Amino acid sequence: MTSKKLVNTVAGCADDALAGLVACNPNLHLLQGHRVALRSDLDSLKGRVALLSGGGSGHEPAHAGFVGKGMLTGVIAGAVFTSPAVGSILAAIRAVAQAGTVGTLLIVKNYTGDRLNFGLAREQARAEGIPVEMVVIGDDSAFTVLKKAGRRGLGGTVLIHKVAGALAEAGVGLEEITNRVSVVAKAMGTLGVSLSSCSVPGSRPTFELSPDEVELGLGSSVVLMVNNLGGLSFLELGIMADAAVRSLEGRGVKIARALVGTFMSALEMPGISLTLLLVDEPLLKLIDAETTASAWPNVAKVSVTGRKRSRAAPAEPLEVPDSTATGGLASRQTVLVLERVCATLLGLEEHLNALDRAAGDGDCGTTHSRAARAIQGWLKEGPPPASPAQLLSKLSFLLLEKMGGSSGALYGLFLTAAAQPLKVKTDLPAWSAAMDAGLEAMQKYGKAAPGDRTMLDSLWAAGQELQAWKSPGANLFRVLTKAVQSAEAAAEATKTMEAGAGRASYISSARLDQPDPGAVATAAILRAILEALQHEGV
Amino acid sequence: MTSKKLVNTVAGCADDALAGLVACNPNLHLLQGHRVALRSDLDSLKGRVALLSGGGSGHEPAHAGFVGKGMLTGVIAGAVFTSPAVGSILAAIRAVAQAGTVGTLLIVKNYTGDRLNFGLAREQARAEGIPVEMVVIGDDSAFTVLKKAGRRGLGGTVLIHKVAGALAEAGVGLEEITNRVSVVAKAMGTLGVSLSSCSVPGSRPTFELSPDEVELGLGSSVVLMVNNLGGLSFLELGIMADAAVRSLEGRGVKIARALVGTFMSALEMPGISLTLLLVDEPLLKLIDAETTASAWPNVAKVSVTGRKRSRAAPAEPLEVPDSTATGGLASRQTVLVLERVCATLLGLEEHLNALDRAAGDGDCGTTHSRAARAIQGWLKEGPPPASPAQLLSKLSFLLLEKMGGSSGALYGLFLTAAAQPLKVKTDLPAWSAAMDAGLEAMQKYGKAAPGDRTMLDSLWAAGQELQAWKSPGANLFRVLTKAVQSAEAAAEATKTMEAGAGRASYISSARLDQPDPGAVATAAILRAILEALQHEGV
Repeated sequence: MTSKKLVNTVAGCADDALAGLVACNPNLHLLQGHRVALRSDLDSLKGRVALLSGGGSGHEPAHAGFVGKGMLTGVIAGAVFTSPAVGSILAAIRAVAQAGTVGTLLIVKNYTGDRLNFGLAREQARAEGIPVEMVVIGDDSAFTVLKKAGRRGLGGTVLIHKVAGALAEAGVGLEEITNRVSVVAKAMGTLGVSLSSCSVPGSRPTFELSPDEVELGLGSSVVLMVNNLGGLSFLELGIMADAAVRSLEGRGVKIARALVGTFMSALEMPGISLTLLLVDEPLLKLIDAETTASAWPNVAKVSVTGRKRSRAAPAEPLEVPDSTATGGLASRQTVLVLERVCATLLGLEEHLNALDRAAGDGDCGTTHSRAARAIQGWLKEGPPPASPAQLLSKLSFLLLEKMGGSSGALYGLFLTAAAQPLKVKTDLPAWSAAMDAGLEAMQKYGKAAPGDRTMLDSLWAAGQELQAWKSPGANLFRVLTKAVQSAEAAAEATKTMEAGAGRASYISSARLDQPDPGAVATAAILRAILEALQHEGV
Repeated sequence: MTSKKLVNTVAGCADDALAGLVACNPNLHLLQGHRVALRSDLDSLKGRVALLSGGGSGHEPAHAGFVGKGMLTGVIAGAVFTSPAVGSILAAIRAVAQAGTVGTLLIVKNYTGDRLNFGLAREQARAEGIPVEMVVIGDDSAFTVLKKAGRRGLGGTVLIHKVAGALAEAGVGLEEITNRVSVVAKAMGTLGVSLSSCSVPGSRPTFELSPDEVELGLGSSVVLMVNNLGGLSFLELGIMADAAVRSLEGRGVKIARALVGTFMSALEMPGISLTLLLVDEPLLKLIDAETTASAWPNVAKVSVTGRKRSRAAPAEPLEVPDSTATGGLASRQTVLVLERVCATLLGLEEHLNALDRAAGDGDCGTTHSRAARAIQGWLKEGPPPASPAQLLSKLSFLLLEKMGGSSGALYGLFLTAAAQPLKVKTDLPAWSAAMDAGLEAMQKYGKAAPGDRTMLDSLWAAGQELQAWKSPGANLFRVLTKAVQSAEAAAEATKTMEAGAGRASYISSARLDQPDPGAVATAAILRAILEALQHEGV
């Protein structure tokens, strides 16, 4: 069975891919009748050296992604993993020559087909009187014993594009560019690693840098390229980059620049290649030079080694007891209220879990019990804050950390928002406003509305009753009792509601004939608060 | 079985990946104790608005790749596909506030966990007196009937990073940035397509643009983002970009900019997402604004639609008969020589294939017969050129096109190079020089040397004898006869040679006890030429 691919036709895929890149990149033109992409500002290059590269398709973004000011003048693409046609290479050479460039350097990866076809095109162009030079790049360091054909050309070729491109942009002549990149290419090595096979042969199964291949010593300065061979996740690419930087710096190598991304792939091969290029200051300037090539990354012109990589965590705000500290319940009373809430939730654990099994993952009781035990443990550590605002904030952080999940975040949101109005006043209108603020935050971030069959339903019903606290002379217990009754009725009413948010919304309403466990839990919490306060006779 | 990945530990992979990105990018700092990356020039942002984003890991380069001048101020990463911790979000907000920024915008993808955790951190930060706003991005256009939770946040979020980043860089205030990006986010839609599953739910199986989702009409201007979801080859990405551009332009939509690459992935998911953002000129300026973010591509500030995408093929050089036209054989003699060569090769087809089966893929005879038939066909079209240089050049193009493979390229190289000395003179020393030039080109690009068991061996032996033609008074036939005998001896001697180049070099020498078919073929060609010339009595 052939692999599943997003292609129109196998025969046309290299053409379609190049057409797509050219269509999306106004810096490129196709050369009519050929699988060739050239800079669209070709006619501005009179008197300069042209740089052409290319090879089989399937290595994108190499090489068309590196066409642009400061990098390549053009590329010739073959079919997938097949050397390009000599006629197309020759057409590209003629096109750049006819645009007024003074000579062409062919940058060729060391594969027999590429060497022969680019070589032949070069000979034919020279026979027509066009000055053409050729450098063959072999940066593969996987083999220590070499075949006659020499090292293969891998991702390091892209660094040669960059260096040659910067030189050509600076107006350097053909012979000097050829000589300088030939020297640079010798100071470079690449090692590939892949997790599984692809049509490209020779990838090595183990990860190791090869310092013996490009003689690296203490204090050597290098450009590091961490190249995705295609199908590796960028998460893993980051992990490999981390390992490479640590390994190199551990050997005393200075990393001047690190390029991380997809530069030269092998279709969707899940692997990476690491390239090291020994650099001095003049060479680094060429790597840093501006380019418009679409696939060349934004690289900061700052050394990777030797800089600070982290920042101290921010200071936490000081806890100043707020002015409402005296407006709260006495510490003993707060403890009694919280203990009753905890005892209630622990007693409901199995009931809430049973309700949740019908619609959720059956852990609503467990989650609330976890919260209750966390509060019990916290109460043992010392007296709770006297300020209601600080009490709710502390509870918010506690639930967020210990209760976890969406419930923890929702209670945390409710309590954090509810704390704000209580910073200023702690009278009954302020407590009603606190309920309003909590409900608003819960709706805003949780995206549930009353009637959606969630914990919001009982809280909302209670909040409506608590509006009465805002009227002058309102009675604490009469209003709170009505609020608790209303919350319980709302919790019961969720039986007939269709879930509109939360996990239960993924279940067909036909299967829900029990009340929502979250709504039941919040109604029970409200009743526990009421009863504790009545018992204490606040 | 778990999938094979390049990670150190599952628990640490999100940390390692972020550490790697920060290590390689001097524009970034880690915030100590948190999975947070911040701009390293944070302290230069006094008085400006800070932009924070983030979410679960596994979507790289989103979001850390978009931290930099002109884009995000920082990002908070969760574990893989898990919302980040509220404490880390709050720490990031505090850190940018303590650096002197005047307010923070949280750019959050619409997922319940992200909404709750970023929302909670926002409420806590506001409780500390830090101005914090939040925009929730839902650009997914895959569903027409929406759940309460709304559209998911996908790749379009990166465009919001860019727009907000450009506004913040320009010194725009928190409220205005929040309002403007909220409007922009409504003019955007994203559709994902994947070939196979990954942990991200909801990818759609068919490719279609959704013009109904972001009302596109004739003349609408859009930014198109073609985003690799991770494991798709860049070849396929180009093909999809091509299809998207053609589809949109076919509907009369003007593509102002097209971004093609990996912006927001889902680990190694083999798929793409397409995002369309309706733009006007002011919005386009924000998209075009400079940024140092490493994962933002080099985008040309030129409209994709409405520009020329190809360049006419170059003119072929005019064929001017060279001055040596009269120095060649008469056309009739040339025909007789070529016919004898062709007949010889056709007669050897089965023998050459048999020799090749021992070491290659058994088609050496077939390839040479194909060349012979091509030459026979060409001879029927009209008389061959009278100039030896033009004759060899024509034969070079013919073999390259019709013979194919490495053999075609090598004969083509030989003939193209050999033609050059014959442009000036066609005496015996010039023919010897032609042989030298051909041999040199063949060695240079083919990387074979005499003794490597290739076609070069017999040609090289002949070339050594033909040096005699350079001496005054040398005899055509005597020297040529010796050369042919020497070539035949060399071909026979390849029996005992170990293959050092070409396909046979992959086979153990122990299995080779026959001569190299390429060497046999070239020796036979030389004998055919000799006999034809003797028969004609030149």
